[in-house]
Amino acid sequence: MGIREHLAEVCESVEGALACTLMAIDGIEIDSHVRDVGADLDMKSLLVEYSGIFQSARRAAETYQAGGVAEVSIATDKVLAVARFISSEHFMVLALSPDGNVGKARYKLRVTAPRLRSEL
Amino acid sequence: MGIREHLAEVCESVEGALACTLMAIDGIEIDSHVRDVGADLDMKSLLVEYSGIFQSARRAAETYQAGGVAEVSIATDKVLAVARFISSEHFMVLALSPDGNVGKARYKLRVTAPRLRSEL
Repeated sequence: MGIREHLAEVCESVEGALACTLMAIDGIEIDSHVRDVGADLDMKSLLVEYSGIFQSARRAAETYQAGGVAEVSIATDKVLAVARFISSEHFMVLALSPDGNVGKARYKLRVTAPRLRSEL
Repeated sequence: MGIREHLAEVCESVEGALACTLMAIDGIEIDSHVRDVGADLDMKSLLVEYSGIFQSARRAAETYQAGGVAEVSIATDKVLAVARFISSEHFMVLALSPDGNVGKARYKLRVTAPRLRSEL
């Protein structure tokens, strides 16, 4: 199973999932599976911007001895993004509609993270 | 019921809650209720740092037409912080132990937000 297949599997098994993306910490997309992102939402640019935020969260947590950051989520009116670090250099993000199944999203990211890590 | 009582009520009704804080967007604490924060964790400084991250998330969402940011959560090895904006200038944060009840945390923040807003 390649990276793209893992991303698709996460996307297709979570209710309300819009897209699942593997990114490098510098905001460069490695691969993604898009199910349904409305034309009015520039998901790629949003994720690049969010990747800076995930980096900041990691730095803050390290500075204040809160431990490594495992997961960050940002919920807006239109999209809920759940990100999970899979290595010090990579994270995956699942974008959901606001009424998507966030519990399942977090679960699927957690179990898929080690599988994706082994592909890198 | 004053601000402090609302914060205490949220804290006491969520399993694994450590502290609940009302903050201004510039990182200044307005009030807080602390139940149990380990001595090794500088929660106040961490929340000040996180408030910058919450602001960045809001700016990113606005820039890319993702709508207003309702909620941001950051999970580290030691603490899970769930933040909810209650106005353009204020947000509340509930800090939980990593095995705390995040579903209940999100629910309590959502229902308490309008009550806190009416106190400001």
